[in-house]
Amino acid sequence: MNITEYFKEKAALVDKWLDRLLPSESETPSILHQAMRYSVFAGGKRLRPILTIATGEIFGAGEHELLPAACSLEMIHTYSLIHDDLPAMDNDDLRRGRSTNHVVYGEAMAILAGDALLTQAFRTLADYQSTNAENKVRVISEIGKAAGTTRALIGGQVLDIQSEGEILTGHQLEEIHRAKTGALISCAVRIGAIIGGANENELKALTDYGEKAGLSFQVADDLLDETATSEELGKTAGKDAAKQKATYTTHYGIDGARKMADRLSQEAIFATGAIGRDARILQEIARFIVERRS
Amino acid sequence: MNITEYFKEKAALVDKWLDRLLPSESETPSILHQAMRYSVFAGGKRLRPILTIATGEIFGAGEHELLPAACSLEMIHTYSLIHDDLPAMDNDDLRRGRSTNHVVYGEAMAILAGDALLTQAFRTLADYQSTNAENKVRVISEIGKAAGTTRALIGGQVLDIQSEGEILTGHQLEEIHRAKTGALISCAVRIGAIIGGANENELKALTDYGEKAGLSFQVADDLLDETATSEELGKTAGKDAAKQKATYTTHYGIDGARKMADRLSQEAIFATGAIGRDARILQEIARFIVERRS
Repeated sequence: MNITEYFKEKAALVDKWLDRLLPSESETPSILHQAMRYSVFAGGKRLRPILTIATGEIFGAGEHELLPAACSLEMIHTYSLIHDDLPAMDNDDLRRGRSTNHVVYGEAMAILAGDALLTQAFRTLADYQSTNAENKVRVISEIGKAAGTTRALIGGQVLDIQSEGEILTGHQLEEIHRAKTGALISCAVRIGAIIGGANENELKALTDYGEKAGLSFQVADDLLDETATSEELGKTAGKDAAKQKATYTTHYGIDGARKMADRLSQEAIFATGAIGRDARILQEIARFIVERRS
Repeated sequence: MNITEYFKEKAALVDKWLDRLLPSESETPSILHQAMRYSVFAGGKRLRPILTIATGEIFGAGEHELLPAACSLEMIHTYSLIHDDLPAMDNDDLRRGRSTNHVVYGEAMAILAGDALLTQAFRTLADYQSTNAENKVRVISEIGKAAGTTRALIGGQVLDIQSEGEILTGHQLEEIHRAKTGALISCAVRIGAIIGGANENELKALTDYGEKAGLSFQVADDLLDETATSEELGKTAGKDAAKQKATYTTHYGIDGARKMADRLSQEAIFATGAIGRDARILQEIARFIVERRS
Protein backbone atom coordinates (compact mmCIF):
# COMPACT_ATOMS: atom_id res chain seq x y z
CA MET A 1 0.00 0.00 0.00
CA ASN A 2 1.38 3.43 -0.80
CA ILE A 3 1.49 6.10 1.89
CA THR A 4 -1.38 8.15 0.45
CA GLU A 5 -3.66 5.12 0.57
CA TYR A 6 -2.43 4.29 4.07
CA PHE A 7 -3.32 7.79 5.30
CA LYS A 8 -6.72 7.59 3.60
CA GLU A 9 -7.56 4.24 5.17
CA LYS A 10 -6.39 5.15 8.67
CA ALA A 11 -8.03 8.59 8.52
CA ALA A 12 -11.36 6.86 7.78
CA LEU A 13 -10.83 4.65 10.84
CA VAL A 14 -10.01 7.68 12.99
CA ASP A 15 -13.14 9.45 11.72
CA LYS A 16 -15.32 6.44 12.55
CA TRP A 17 -14.00 6.43 16.12
CA LEU A 18 -14.19 10.19 16.55
CA ASP A 19 -17.83 9.98 15.54
CA ARG A 20 -18.40 7.39 18.29
CA LEU A 21 -16.39 9.22 20.92
CA LEU A 22 -17.86 12.71 20.51
CA PRO A 23 -21.28 13.66 21.91
CA SER A 24 -23.94 13.51 19.19
CA GLU A 25 -25.54 16.66 17.81
CA SER A 26 -28.93 15.48 19.07
CA GLU A 27 -27.72 15.74 22.68
CA THR A 28 -28.28 18.99 24.58
CA PRO A 29 -26.74 21.51 24.10
CA SER A 30 -26.91 20.68 20.41
CA ILE A 31 -25.21 23.86 19.20
CA LEU A 32 -22.11 23.10 21.28
CA HIS A 33 -21.86 19.56 19.95
CA GLN A 34 -22.33 20.87 16.40
CA ALA A 35 -19.50 23.36 16.93
CA MET A 36 -17.21 20.62 18.28
CA ARG A 37 -17.96 18.34 15.34
CA TYR A 38 -17.70 21.14 12.77
CA SER A 39 -13.98 21.58 13.48
CA VAL A 40 -13.17 17.94 14.18
CA PHE A 41 -14.68 16.82 10.86
CA ALA A 42 -13.14 19.59 8.76
CA GLY A 43 -10.90 17.27 6.78
CA GLY A 44 -7.66 17.27 8.76
CA LYS A 45 -4.84 14.92 7.78
CA ARG A 46 -5.14 13.06 11.12
CA LEU A 47 -1.34 13.00 11.33
CA ARG A 48 -1.20 12.68 15.14
CA PRO A 49 -3.67 9.79 15.49
CA ILE A 50 -2.12 8.05 12.50
CA LEU A 51 1.32 8.28 14.12
CA THR A 52 -0.12 6.62 17.23
CA ILE A 53 -1.74 3.89 15.16
CA ALA A 54 1.31 3.28 12.95
CA THR A 55 3.61 3.06 15.98
CA GLY A 56 1.26 0.90 18.01
CA GLU A 57 0.73 -1.52 15.12
CA ILE A 58 4.49 -2.07 14.84
CA PHE A 59 4.26 -3.53 18.35
CA GLY A 60 1.12 -5.54 17.62
CA ALA A 61 -1.44 -3.29 19.36
CA GLY A 62 -4.99 -3.45 17.97
CA GLU A 63 -7.73 -1.03 17.01
CA HIS A 64 -9.56 -0.97 20.37
CA GLU A 65 -6.33 -0.36 22.24
CA LEU A 66 -5.07 2.42 19.98
CA LEU A 67 -8.02 4.37 18.62
CA PRO A 68 -9.36 6.04 21.79
CA ALA A 69 -5.92 7.46 22.62
CA ALA A 70 -5.30 8.36 18.97
CA CYS A 71 -8.63 10.20 18.79
CA SER A 72 -8.03 12.04 22.04
CA LEU A 73 -4.91 13.56 20.43
CA GLU A 74 -6.98 14.74 17.48
CA MET A 75 -9.50 16.31 19.88
CA ILE A 76 -6.67 18.18 21.60
CA HIS A 77 -5.11 19.21 18.29
CA THR A 78 -8.50 20.50 17.10
CA TYR A 79 -9.20 22.43 20.31
CA SER A 80 -5.80 24.12 19.98
CA LEU A 81 -6.59 25.16 16.40
CA ILE A 82 -10.00 26.56 17.38
CA HIS A 83 -8.50 28.64 20.18
CA ASP A 84 -5.45 29.72 18.12
CA ASP A 85 -7.76 30.99 15.35
CA LEU A 86 -9.75 33.25 17.72
CA PRO A 87 -9.70 37.02 17.12
CA ALA A 88 -7.77 37.53 20.37
CA MET A 89 -5.06 35.16 19.12
CA ASP A 90 -4.14 34.65 15.42
CA ASN A 91 -7.49 36.00 14.14
CA ASP A 92 -7.79 33.54 11.26
CA ASP A 93 -10.96 33.26 9.18
CA LEU A 94 -10.00 30.23 7.13
CA ARG A 95 -8.83 26.78 8.21
CA ARG A 96 -8.77 23.53 6.25
CA GLY A 97 -10.64 25.32 3.44
CA ARG A 98 -13.58 26.35 5.63
CA SER A 99 -14.57 29.28 7.79
CA THR A 100 -13.03 28.97 11.24
CA ASN A 101 -15.15 27.94 14.20
CA HIS A 102 -15.77 31.40 15.65
CA VAL A 103 -16.77 32.76 12.23
CA VAL A 104 -19.55 30.17 12.06
CA TYR A 105 -20.57 29.78 15.72
CA GLY A 106 -19.38 33.03 17.33
CA GLU A 107 -16.52 33.55 19.74
CA ALA A 108 -18.25 32.36 22.90
CA MET A 109 -19.22 29.02 21.36
CA ALA A 110 -15.78 28.58 19.78
CA ILE A 111 -14.09 29.06 23.15
CA LEU A 112 -16.49 26.57 24.76
CA ALA A 113 -16.20 24.06 21.90
CA GLY A 114 -12.43 24.12 22.38
CA ASP A 115 -12.79 23.66 26.14
CA ALA A 116 -15.19 20.80 25.53
CA LEU A 117 -12.86 18.98 23.11
CA LEU A 118 -10.00 19.22 25.59
CA THR A 119 -12.21 17.86 28.36
CA GLN A 120 -13.63 15.10 26.16
CA ALA A 121 -10.09 14.04 25.24
CA PHE A 122 -9.24 13.24 28.86
CA ARG A 123 -12.61 11.64 29.50
CA THR A 124 -12.05 9.42 26.46
CA LEU A 125 -8.71 8.31 27.86
CA ALA A 126 -10.29 7.39 31.20
CA ASP A 127 -13.43 5.73 29.83
CA TYR A 128 -12.70 4.15 26.46
CA GLN A 129 -9.11 2.97 26.38
CA SER A 130 -9.02 -0.79 26.13
CA THR A 131 -6.03 -1.40 28.35
CA ASN A 132 -5.21 -1.81 32.04
CA ALA A 133 -5.49 1.08 34.50
CA GLU A 134 -1.70 1.53 34.83
CA ASN A 135 -1.34 2.05 31.08
CA LYS A 136 -4.33 4.42 31.03
CA VAL A 137 -2.79 6.60 33.71
CA ARG A 138 0.56 6.58 31.92
CA VAL A 139 -1.05 7.69 28.64
CA ILE A 140 -3.05 10.42 30.41
CA SER A 141 0.13 11.65 32.05
CA GLU A 142 2.00 11.72 28.70
CA ILE A 143 -0.79 13.61 26.97
CA GLY A 144 -1.30 15.99 29.91
CA LYS A 145 2.38 16.86 29.74
CA ALA A 146 2.50 17.33 25.95
CA ALA A 147 -0.66 19.47 25.97
CA GLY A 148 0.61 21.56 28.90
CA THR A 149 2.70 24.65 29.47
CA THR A 150 6.39 23.80 29.86
CA ARG A 151 8.00 22.81 26.56
CA ALA A 152 4.50 21.82 25.49
CA LEU A 153 1.50 22.84 23.37
CA ILE A 154 0.09 25.81 25.32
CA GLY A 155 3.50 27.14 26.31
CA GLY A 156 4.51 27.03 22.65
CA GLN A 157 1.52 29.10 21.63
CA VAL A 158 2.44 31.69 24.28
CA LEU A 159 6.02 31.86 22.99
CA ASP A 160 4.69 32.13 19.44
CA ILE A 161 2.45 35.07 20.35
CA GLN A 162 5.25 36.76 22.26
CA SER A 163 7.63 36.41 19.30
CA GLU A 164 5.50 38.35 16.83
CA GLY A 165 7.55 41.17 15.33
CA GLU A 166 10.70 39.95 17.15
CA ILE A 167 13.95 38.84 15.52
CA LEU A 168 14.63 35.33 16.81
CA THR A 169 17.71 33.16 16.84
CA GLY A 170 17.48 29.73 15.20
CA HIS A 171 17.53 28.25 18.69
CA GLN A 172 14.56 30.35 19.86
CA LEU A 173 12.62 29.42 16.74
CA GLU A 174 13.25 25.75 17.44
CA GLU A 175 12.21 26.14 21.10
CA ILE A 176 8.84 27.56 20.01
CA HIS A 177 8.12 24.81 17.53
CA ARG A 178 9.41 21.97 19.65
CA ALA A 179 6.76 23.08 22.15
CA LYS A 180 3.90 24.21 19.92
CA THR A 181 3.98 21.41 17.33
CA GLY A 182 6.69 18.96 18.31
CA ALA A 183 5.47 17.98 21.77
CA LEU A 184 2.11 16.60 20.63
CA ILE A 185 3.52 14.88 17.54
CA SER A 186 6.25 13.28 19.59
CA CYS A 187 3.63 12.33 22.21
CA ALA A 188 1.56 10.63 19.47
CA VAL A 189 4.47 8.33 18.69
CA ARG A 190 5.29 7.70 22.34
CA ILE A 191 1.77 6.69 23.35
CA GLY A 192 1.56 4.32 20.39
CA ALA A 193 4.77 2.74 21.70
CA ILE A 194 3.56 2.69 25.31
CA ILE A 195 0.24 1.09 24.39
CA GLY A 196 2.10 -1.42 22.23
CA GLY A 197 4.42 -2.31 25.10
CA ALA A 198 7.72 -1.00 23.68
CA ASN A 199 10.79 -1.38 25.90
CA GLU A 200 12.79 1.61 27.17
CA ASN A 201 15.32 1.56 24.31
CA GLU A 202 12.60 1.39 21.71
CA LEU A 203 10.71 4.20 23.44
CA LYS A 204 13.86 6.32 23.42
CA ALA A 205 14.43 5.73 19.69
CA LEU A 206 10.80 6.48 18.92
CA THR A 207 10.89 9.67 20.99
CA ASP A 208 13.86 10.74 18.88
CA TYR A 209 11.90 9.87 15.74
CA GLY A 210 8.90 11.83 16.98
CA GLU A 211 10.92 14.93 17.86
CA LYS A 212 12.65 15.00 14.48
CA ALA A 213 9.44 14.28 12.57
CA GLY A 214 7.62 16.94 14.61
CA LEU A 215 10.18 19.63 13.81
CA SER A 216 10.30 18.60 10.15
CA PHE A 217 6.52 19.01 10.05
CA GLN A 218 6.81 22.62 11.19
CA VAL A 219 9.61 23.46 8.75
CA ALA A 220 7.53 21.90 5.94
CA ASP A 221 4.54 23.94 7.13
CA ASP A 222 6.53 27.16 6.90
CA LEU A 223 7.69 26.19 3.39
CA LEU A 224 4.12 25.51 2.32
CA ASP A 225 3.03 28.85 3.77
CA GLU A 226 5.55 30.53 1.44
CA THR A 227 5.25 28.40 -1.66
CA ALA A 228 1.71 27.01 -1.84
CA THR A 229 -1.50 28.89 -2.65
CA SER A 230 -4.33 29.47 -0.16
CA GLU A 231 -6.41 27.07 -2.24
CA GLU A 232 -3.87 24.26 -1.91
CA LEU A 233 -3.44 24.93 1.82
CA GLY A 234 -7.07 25.45 2.74
CA LYS A 235 -5.90 28.36 4.87
CA THR A 236 -4.61 31.84 4.20
CA ALA A 237 -1.15 31.51 2.60
CA GLY A 238 1.62 34.00 3.36
CA LYS A 239 -0.07 34.90 6.63
CA ASP A 240 2.96 34.34 8.86
CA ALA A 241 5.03 36.73 6.76
CA ALA A 242 2.23 39.31 6.87
CA LYS A 243 2.13 39.05 10.69
CA GLN A 244 5.92 39.32 10.88
CA LYS A 245 6.14 35.94 12.51
CA ALA A 246 9.55 34.41 12.57
CA THR A 247 9.49 31.24 10.47
CA TYR A 248 12.06 28.77 9.20
CA THR A 249 11.81 30.31 5.73
CA THR A 250 12.35 33.87 6.92
CA HIS A 251 15.23 32.68 9.07
CA TYR A 252 16.99 30.23 6.73
CA GLY A 253 15.55 31.17 3.32
CA ILE A 254 13.47 28.78 1.20
CA ASP A 255 16.46 26.68 0.14
CA GLY A 256 17.86 26.54 3.65
CA ALA A 257 14.50 25.52 5.11
CA ARG A 258 14.06 22.89 2.38
CA LYS A 259 17.42 21.38 3.26
CA MET A 260 16.59 21.47 6.95
CA ALA A 261 13.27 19.67 6.42
CA ASP A 262 15.00 16.97 4.40
CA ARG A 263 17.75 16.58 6.98
CA LEU A 264 15.27 16.28 9.88
CA SER A 265 13.29 13.74 7.87
CA GLN A 266 16.46 11.68 7.27
CA GLU A 267 17.33 11.86 10.98
CA ALA A 268 13.84 10.67 11.90
CA ILE A 269 14.20 7.75 9.49
CA PHE A 270 17.64 6.96 10.91
CA ALA A 271 16.22 6.88 14.46
CA THR A 272 13.85 4.05 13.52
CA GLY A 273 16.91 1.83 12.89
CA ALA A 274 17.27 1.34 16.66
CA ILE A 275 13.93 -0.45 16.89
CA GLY A 276 14.28 -4.16 16.35
CA ARG A 277 11.09 -4.28 14.28
CA ASP A 278 9.87 -3.47 10.80
CA ALA A 279 9.35 0.30 11.04
CA ARG A 280 9.01 1.02 7.31
CA ILE A 281 5.65 2.68 7.83
CA LEU A 282 7.20 5.30 10.15
CA GLN A 283 9.91 5.91 7.56
CA GLU A 284 7.25 6.46 4.90
CA ILE A 285 5.39 8.87 7.19
CA ALA A 286 8.61 10.84 7.86
CA ARG A 287 9.04 11.24 4.10
CA PHE A 288 5.38 12.13 3.60
CA ILE A 289 5.55 14.88 6.25
CA VAL A 290 8.15 16.87 4.32
CA GLU A 291 6.89 16.08 0.81
CA ARG A 292 3.18 16.83 1.25
CA ARG A 293 1.54 19.64 -0.74
CA SER A 294 -0.99 20.72 1.91
CA MET B 1 -14.07 24.03 65.54
CA ASN B 2 -16.66 26.28 63.99
CA ILE B 3 -17.31 26.16 60.26
CA THR B 4 -15.58 29.47 59.48
CA GLU B 5 -12.39 28.23 61.13
CA TYR B 6 -12.75 24.88 59.36
CA PHE B 7 -12.96 26.63 55.98
CA LYS B 8 -9.98 28.83 56.82
CA GLU B 9 -7.81 25.90 57.86
CA LYS B 10 -8.70 23.70 54.89
CA ALA B 11 -8.39 26.60 52.43
CA ALA B 12 -4.83 27.14 53.66
CA LEU B 13 -4.10 23.46 53.04
CA VAL B 14 -5.61 23.68 49.55
CA ASP B 15 -3.51 26.76 48.80
CA LYS B 16 -0.34 25.02 49.94
CA TRP B 17 -1.02 22.12 47.57
CA LEU B 18 -2.10 24.34 44.68
CA ASP B 19 1.20 26.17 45.01
CA ARG B 20 3.02 22.84 44.70
CA LEU B 21 0.91 21.50 41.87
CA LEU B 22 0.98 24.55 39.58
CA PRO B 23 4.02 25.41 37.45
CA SER B 24 6.16 28.09 39.11
CA GLU B 25 6.34 31.63 37.76
CA SER B 26 10.06 31.18 37.15
CA GLU B 27 9.36 28.48 34.56
CA THR B 28 9.01 29.49 30.88
CA PRO B 29 6.65 30.90 29.77
CA SER B 30 6.58 32.92 32.96
CA ILE B 31 3.71 35.21 31.92
CA LEU B 32 1.40 32.22 31.38
CA HIS B 33 2.22 30.75 34.78
CA GLN B 34 1.68 34.17 36.37
CA ALA B 35 -1.73 34.43 34.72
CA MET B 36 -2.70 30.95 35.94
CA ARG B 37 -1.64 31.73 39.49
CA TYR B 38 -3.22 35.19 39.47
CA SER B 39 -6.71 33.70 39.20
CA VAL B 40 -6.09 30.58 41.28
CA PHE B 41 -4.78 32.65 44.20
CA ALA B 42 -7.47 35.32 44.05
CA GLY B 43 -9.03 34.39 47.37
CA GLY B 44 -11.72 31.91 46.40
CA LYS B 45 -13.68 30.08 49.10
CA ARG B 46 -12.27 26.70 47.93
CA LEU B 47 -15.73 25.19 48.37
CA ARG B 48 -15.20 22.36 45.87
CA PRO B 49 -11.86 21.11 47.22
CA ILE B 50 -13.11 21.49 50.78
CA LEU B 51 -16.14 19.34 49.94
CA THR B 52 -13.78 16.65 48.62
CA ILE B 53 -11.62 16.86 51.73
CA ALA B 54 -14.56 16.90 54.16
CA THR B 55 -16.18 13.90 52.47
CA GLY B 56 -12.94 11.94 52.13
CA GLU B 57 -12.03 12.52 55.77
CA ILE B 58 -15.35 11.04 56.87
CA PHE B 59 -14.13 7.79 55.32
CA GLY B 60 -10.62 8.09 56.75
CA ALA B 61 -8.78 9.25 53.62
CA GLY B 62 -5.66 11.34 54.22
CA GLU B 63 -4.09 14.50 52.87
CA HIS B 64 -1.94 12.91 50.16
CA GLU B 65 -4.86 10.92 48.86
CA LEU B 66 -7.32 13.80 48.78
CA LEU B 67 -5.48 17.03 48.01
CA PRO B 68 -4.36 16.41 44.41
CA ALA B 69 -7.92 15.56 43.33
CA ALA B 70 -9.34 18.40 45.45
CA CYS B 71 -6.93 20.89 43.85
CA SER B 72 -7.67 19.65 40.34
CA LEU B 73 -11.31 20.64 40.93
CA GLU B 74 -10.24 24.13 41.95
CA MET B 75 -8.10 24.40 38.80
CA ILE B 76 -11.13 23.44 36.70
CA HIS B 77 -13.41 25.82 38.60
CA THR B 78 -10.90 28.64 38.11
CA TYR B 79 -10.46 27.96 34.38
CA SER B 80 -14.24 28.08 33.97
CA LEU B 81 -14.39 31.47 35.72
CA ILE B 82 -11.56 32.91 33.58
CA HIS B 83 -13.29 31.82 30.37
CA ASP B 84 -16.77 32.84 31.56
CA ASP B 85 -15.50 36.35 32.35
CA LEU B 86 -14.10 36.90 28.83
CA PRO B 87 -15.55 39.73 26.72
CA ALA B 88 -17.05 37.18 24.30
CA MET B 89 -18.92 35.54 27.21
CA ASP B 90 -20.09 37.40 30.33
CA ASN B 91 -17.66 40.31 29.85
CA ASP B 92 -16.94 40.78 33.56
CA ASP B 93 -14.21 43.10 34.78
CA LEU B 94 -14.34 42.21 38.45
CA ARG B 95 -14.05 38.83 40.20
CA ARG B 96 -13.25 38.04 43.82
CA GLY B 97 -12.56 41.75 44.36
CA ARG B 98 -9.89 41.96 41.67
CA SER B 99 -9.69 42.74 37.97
CA THR B 100 -10.50 39.66 35.92
CA ASN B 101 -7.74 37.72 34.20
CA HIS B 102 -8.18 39.20 30.71
CA VAL B 103 -8.22 42.74 32.12
CA VAL B 104 -4.77 42.16 33.59
CA TYR B 105 -3.15 39.77 31.08
CA GLY B 106 -5.14 40.36 27.88
CA GLU B 107 -7.64 38.09 26.20
CA ALA B 108 -5.17 35.77 24.49
CA MET B 109 -3.32 35.00 27.71
CA ALA B 110 -6.59 34.58 29.64
CA ILE B 111 -7.83 32.00 27.14
CA LEU B 112 -4.51 30.15 27.32
CA ALA B 113 -4.31 30.36 31.13
CA GLY B 114 -7.76 28.76 31.28
CA ASP B 115 -6.73 26.05 28.83
CA ALA B 116 -3.59 25.45 30.86
CA LEU B 117 -5.46 25.11 34.17
CA LEU B 118 -7.85 22.57 32.64
CA THR B 119 -4.92 20.59 31.24
CA GLN B 120 -2.96 20.80 34.50
CA ALA B 121 -5.99 19.49 36.39
CA PHE B 122 -5.97 16.23 34.45
CA ARG B 123 -2.21 15.93 34.58
CA THR B 124 -2.38 16.37 38.35
CA LEU B 125 -4.89 13.54 38.58
CA ALA B 126 -2.62 11.23 36.58
CA ASP B 127 0.67 12.16 38.24
CA TYR B 128 0.06 13.17 41.83
CA GLN B 129 -2.85 11.22 43.21
CA SER B 130 -1.67 8.92 45.94
CA THR B 131 -3.93 5.98 45.20
CA ASN B 132 -3.99 2.93 42.94
CA ALA B 133 -4.38 3.24 39.17
CA GLU B 134 -8.00 1.97 39.16
CA ASN B 135 -9.06 4.74 41.56
CA LYS B 136 -7.13 7.35 39.58
CA VAL B 137 -8.93 6.39 36.38
CA ARG B 138 -12.28 6.44 38.17
CA VAL B 139 -11.65 9.94 39.55
CA ILE B 140 -10.49 11.19 36.13
CA SER B 141 -13.64 9.77 34.57
CA GLU B 142 -15.87 11.44 37.20
CA ILE B 143 -14.20 14.81 36.76
CA GLY B 144 -14.14 14.52 32.97
CA LYS B 145 -17.87 13.92 33.02
CA ALA B 146 -18.70 16.75 35.45
CA ALA B 147 -16.53 19.23 33.53
CA GLY B 148 -18.01 18.14 30.18
CA THR B 149 -20.94 19.03 27.99
CA THR B 150 -23.99 16.92 28.79
CA ARG B 151 -25.61 17.95 32.08
CA ALA B 152 -22.18 19.27 33.03
CA LEU B 153 -20.07 22.42 33.43
CA ILE B 154 -19.51 23.50 29.82
CA GLY B 155 -22.99 22.51 28.68
CA GLY B 156 -24.43 24.56 31.54
CA GLN B 157 -22.52 27.66 30.44
CA VAL B 158 -23.91 27.20 26.91
CA LEU B 159 -27.47 26.92 28.24
CA ASP B 160 -26.85 29.97 30.43
CA ILE B 161 -25.66 32.04 27.45
CA GLN B 162 -28.56 30.85 25.32
CA SER B 163 -31.08 31.79 28.02
CA GLU B 164 -30.13 35.48 28.19
CA GLY B 165 -33.24 37.58 27.67
CA GLU B 166 -35.46 34.46 27.62
CA ILE B 167 -38.33 33.70 30.00
CA LEU B 168 -37.55 30.33 31.56
CA THR B 169 -39.64 27.83 33.45
CA GLY B 170 -38.46 26.81 36.91
CA HIS B 171 -37.50 23.47 35.42
CA GLN B 172 -35.30 25.08 32.74
CA LEU B 173 -33.63 27.26 35.34
CA GLU B 174 -32.85 24.20 37.41
CA GLU B 175 -31.47 22.34 34.36
CA ILE B 176 -29.01 25.17 33.70
CA HIS B 177 -27.74 25.33 37.24
CA ARG B 178 -27.63 21.59 37.83
CA ALA B 179 -25.21 21.55 34.89
CA LYS B 180 -23.30 24.79 35.33
CA THR B 181 -22.74 24.72 39.09
CA GLY B 182 -24.25 21.52 40.45
CA ALA B 183 -22.28 18.97 38.44
CA LEU B 184 -18.85 20.02 39.70
CA ILE B 185 -20.00 20.52 43.31
CA SER B 186 -21.66 17.12 43.31
CA CYS B 187 -18.54 15.65 41.71
CA ALA B 188 -16.42 17.14 44.51
CA VAL B 189 -18.43 15.17 47.07
CA ARG B 190 -18.43 12.00 44.96
CA ILE B 191 -14.67 11.89 44.43
CA GLY B 192 -14.09 12.43 48.13
CA ALA B 193 -16.32 9.42 48.71
CA ILE B 194 -14.64 7.35 45.98
CA ILE B 195 -11.15 8.09 47.24
CA GLY B 196 -12.30 7.28 50.77
CA GLY B 197 -13.74 3.95 49.63
CA ALA B 198 -17.45 4.62 50.26
CA ASN B 199 -19.84 1.81 49.35
CA GLU B 200 -22.55 2.15 46.70
CA ASN B 201 -25.28 3.18 49.16
CA GLU B 202 -23.08 5.79 50.76
CA LEU B 203 -22.08 7.09 47.34
CA LYS B 204 -25.73 7.37 46.36
CA ALA B 205 -26.59 9.32 49.52
CA LEU B 206 -23.60 11.60 49.05
CA THR B 207 -24.51 12.22 45.42
CA ASP B 208 -27.93 13.29 46.64
CA TYR B 209 -26.28 15.55 49.21
CA GLY B 210 -23.99 17.03 46.54
CA GLU B 211 -26.82 17.73 44.11
CA LYS B 212 -28.94 19.47 46.74
CA ALA B 213 -25.99 21.43 48.14
CA GLY B 214 -24.95 22.40 44.61
CA LEU B 215 -28.37 23.78 43.74
CA SER B 216 -28.66 25.56 47.08
CA PHE B 217 -25.30 27.19 46.33
CA GLN B 218 -26.66 28.66 43.11
CA VAL B 219 -29.90 29.88 44.71
CA ALA B 220 -27.84 31.52 47.47
CA ASP B 221 -25.61 33.07 44.80
CA ASP B 222 -28.61 34.60 43.08
CA LEU B 223 -29.84 35.94 46.42
CA LEU B 224 -26.46 37.49 47.15
CA ASP B 225 -26.42 39.04 43.67
CA GLU B 226 -29.67 40.83 44.59
CA THR B 227 -29.08 41.65 48.22
CA ALA B 228 -25.33 42.12 48.76
CA THR B 229 -23.13 44.99 47.59
CA SER B 230 -20.34 44.65 45.01
CA GLU B 231 -17.88 45.23 47.82
CA GLU B 232 -19.22 42.32 49.86
CA LEU B 233 -19.32 40.07 46.79
CA GLY B 234 -16.01 41.03 45.25
CA LYS B 235 -17.79 41.05 41.92
CA THR B 236 -20.29 43.31 40.22
CA ALA B 237 -23.61 42.98 42.10
CA GLY B 238 -26.92 43.11 40.25
CA LYS B 239 -25.21 42.07 37.05
CA ASP B 240 -27.51 39.14 36.25
CA ALA B 241 -30.56 41.39 36.43
CA ALA B 242 -28.84 43.96 34.20
CA LYS B 243 -28.13 41.24 31.61
CA GLN B 244 -31.72 39.97 31.81
CA LYS B 245 -30.50 36.61 33.00
CA ALA B 246 -33.12 34.38 34.49
CA THR B 247 -32.25 33.80 38.16
CA TYR B 248 -33.96 32.15 41.12
CA THR B 249 -34.76 35.57 42.54
CA THR B 250 -36.35 36.88 39.35
CA HIS B 251 -38.28 33.64 39.01
CA TYR B 252 -39.38 33.03 42.61
CA GLY B 253 -38.86 36.44 44.20
CA ILE B 254 -36.44 37.06 47.07
CA ASP B 255 -38.64 35.39 49.68
CA GLY B 256 -39.34 32.42 47.42
CA ALA B 257 -35.68 31.97 46.60
CA ARG B 258 -34.74 32.28 50.31
CA LYS B 259 -37.21 29.51 51.16
CA MET B 260 -35.93 27.36 48.33
CA ALA B 261 -32.31 27.74 49.46
CA ASP B 262 -33.26 26.75 53.00
CA ARG B 263 -35.32 23.78 51.80
CA LEU B 264 -32.47 22.50 49.57
CA SER B 265 -30.05 22.91 52.44
CA GLN B 266 -32.35 20.87 54.71
CA GLU B 267 -32.68 18.17 52.05
CA ALA B 268 -28.90 18.00 51.70
CA ILE B 269 -28.57 17.60 55.47
CA PHE B 270 -31.27 14.94 55.47
CA ALA B 271 -29.41 12.98 52.76
CA THR B 272 -26.37 12.61 55.02
CA GLY B 273 -28.51 10.55 57.40
CA ALA B 274 -28.13 7.55 55.08
CA ILE B 275 -24.37 7.40 55.67
CA GLY B 276 -23.48 5.23 58.62
CA ARG B 277 -20.77 7.69 59.72
CA ASP B 278 -20.42 10.99 61.51
CA ALA B 279 -21.25 13.45 58.71
CA ARG B 280 -21.72 16.56 60.86
CA ILE B 281 -19.11 18.46 58.88
CA LEU B 282 -21.11 18.03 55.66
CA GLN B 283 -24.21 19.23 57.50
CA GLU B 284 -22.33 22.33 58.67
CA ILE B 285 -21.13 22.97 55.11
CA ALA B 286 -24.69 22.68 53.75
CA ARG B 287 -25.78 25.33 56.26
CA PHE B 288 -22.77 27.53 55.50
CA ILE B 289 -23.51 27.44 51.74
CA VAL B 290 -26.88 29.14 52.15
CA GLU B 291 -25.95 31.44 55.03
CA ARG B 292 -22.70 32.94 53.65
CA ARG B 293 -22.46 36.68 52.92
CA SER B 294 -20.10 36.42 49.90
